[in-house]
Amino acid sequence: MRFRLTPRETSYFDLLTESAQHLVDGSKLLSELLGADRPGRKAIAKKLNDAEHAADDSTHAIMKMLNQTFVTPFDRDDIYNLASALDDCMDCMEEAADLIVLYKIDEIPRRVSEQVQVLERASELTCEAMPKLRTMDDLEDYWIEVNRLENQADKIHRKLIAQLFDEITDPILLMKLKEIVEILEEAADAFEKVANTVETIVLKES
Amino acid sequence: MRFRLTPRETSYFDLLTESAQHLVDGSKLLSELLGADRPGRKAIAKKLNDAEHAADDSTHAIMKMLNQTFVTPFDRDDIYNLASALDDCMDCMEEAADLIVLYKIDEIPRRVSEQVQVLERASELTCEAMPKLRTMDDLEDYWIEVNRLENQADKIHRKLIAQLFDEITDPILLMKLKEIVEILEEAADAFEKVANTVETIVLKES
Amino acid sequence: MRFRLTPRETSYFDLLTESAQHLVDGSKLLSELLGADRPGRKAIAKKLNDAEHAADDSTHAIMKMLNQTFVTPFDRDDIYNLASALDDCMDCMEEAADLIVLYKIDEIPRRVSEQVQVLERASELTCEAMPKLRTMDDLEDYWIEVNRLENQADKIHRKLIAQLFDEITDPILLMKLKEIVEILEEAADAFEKVANTVETIVLKES
Repeated sequence: MRFRLTPRETSYFDLLTESAQHLVDGSKLLSELLGADRPGRKAIAKKLNDAEHAADDSTHAIMKMLNQTFVTPFDRDDIYNLASALDDCMDCMEEAADLIVLYKIDEIPRRVSEQVQVLERASELTCEAMPKLRTMDDLEDYWIEVNRLENQADKIHRKLIAQLFDEITDPILLMKLKEIVEILEEAADAFEKVANTVETIVLKES
Repeated sequence: MRFRLTPRETSYFDLLTESAQHLVDGSKLLSELLGADRPGRKAIAKKLNDAEHAADDSTHAIMKMLNQTFVTPFDRDDIYNLASALDDCMDCMEEAADLIVLYKIDEIPRRVSEQVQVLERASELTCEAMPKLRTMDDLEDYWIEVNRLENQADKIHRKLIAQLFDEITDPILLMKLKEIVEILEEAADAFEKVANTVETIVLKES
Repeated sequence: MRFRLTPRETSYFDLLTESAQHLVDGSKLLSELLGADRPGRKAIAKKLNDAEHAADDSTHAIMKMLNQTFVTPFDRDDIYNLASALDDCMDCMEEAADLIVLYKIDEIPRRVSEQVQVLERASELTCEAMPKLRTMDDLEDYWIEVNRLENQADKIHRKLIAQLFDEITDPILLMKLKEIVEILEEAADAFEKVANTVETIVLKES
């Protein structure tokens, strides 16, 4: 059996869970933003900026703890990689929201919502997985499912790019939409990186 | 004199060589794809996808071994970096092939073949170099030559970009070709990163 | 009190300072290039290429020392990260200069100078900070100020992108200017990464 860790070490799990919780908030806001009309989007993007700042605080708290403590519940590089990858997920989602506002996009292609649905699901799974790092039990389903979601995101992304080049003849609009679609694909990759890091941690300890 | 490593450790060299062998296959397919007509390209891109999956399996096998063994023939971070950089070479070559198909490019500028010839040569050299990590002898020529090839790739890339902006007036076609040319340049950078990691490993052990 | 380090270790500080000094030169040349007319820019870009080569030599000297010595004045990963981040600052500034020449830009938007002013200030602060790593005193103001500068750069960048999309109707010119503006933003990010690495080093030692 695996013993619970000491209180001091416990807070890594709390902070990682907190960081993942911000991703759930962020992906929900991103989904809300897609459904809103252009005037409504700015306020939602502002909320997403706030969620990103809160996530940044969690990341910094993890990094500070890493720099100032000797004992870590698992390999310190892996904690660092995990915190960085969680941070990347948020940065990509925030950037997508910002670009939609900045580029004054009128009509967002329907498939972009499919990309964001994948991110919502990935962030929920990630948030459920983080506290399980304490015991490292029942995590395999999580990383398998997130890898599957990333494959799905990849297919949606590829179809979207083909569709944009087929349907959009205004090169400047094409440039804008392509950038948004690609940053959402980067977000899906970042979630996969979180899952791969969790897998690495569990394999090392098993 | 340097003794041979134990059988267990040996497999890192086998897996790295295997990974590099997939790069040789990949670069040859990419070259073949450039010479094919549009209808023929899809089947070749499919073969390149298969080569990329095979390369992925080699990478995962290396990562798994790294996570589950204590003794490594050289610094574990360097093995990790080497496997990742080899993986990046393949990802870039696959992406270039996919984009040529996805973007339905009619005429590929002649200089793109020059980029791919450099990648073919770099992958052959890399494949010859990997088994030499066992004894670490005779590797200097390899990394010097790959660095020279990267400089050459850089010059071809720069000329190609200038040429595209001079000759192509359709902004959407320009966007497509620029992306393909840049991902091929990234592939050359990734081969250089492999060579630099090999240099690091040899210098540490010398 | 903190003792001075041994002469051998000292040279890390010299090399890091040397590397940062090249950034001061590079940012000044970039600023000069913006003020020059099109025919004059090529010669200035050439000087910037030379500065980049010199910076490369400093980086390689640091990496070689890292690979061949056991004792380092602080965590070897942090020295590696610091040298890499300094190198990234230079690469981005050089690439911006090269693109301005390669793309034969006639009129550079005024706000690009504001981006470069931030880089000049960040490189001066970085150059003053490097020798202080010897005693690790008085470095907090440096990383706070560089973080502030990065926020400022981010705002300028965002306004510039909005302005480009509002004012420029030629998609190819837009593509060119956007790429230049973004690589300058990457340079500001790289300076922030240097500062964050310095903060990490100081926190670990405190």
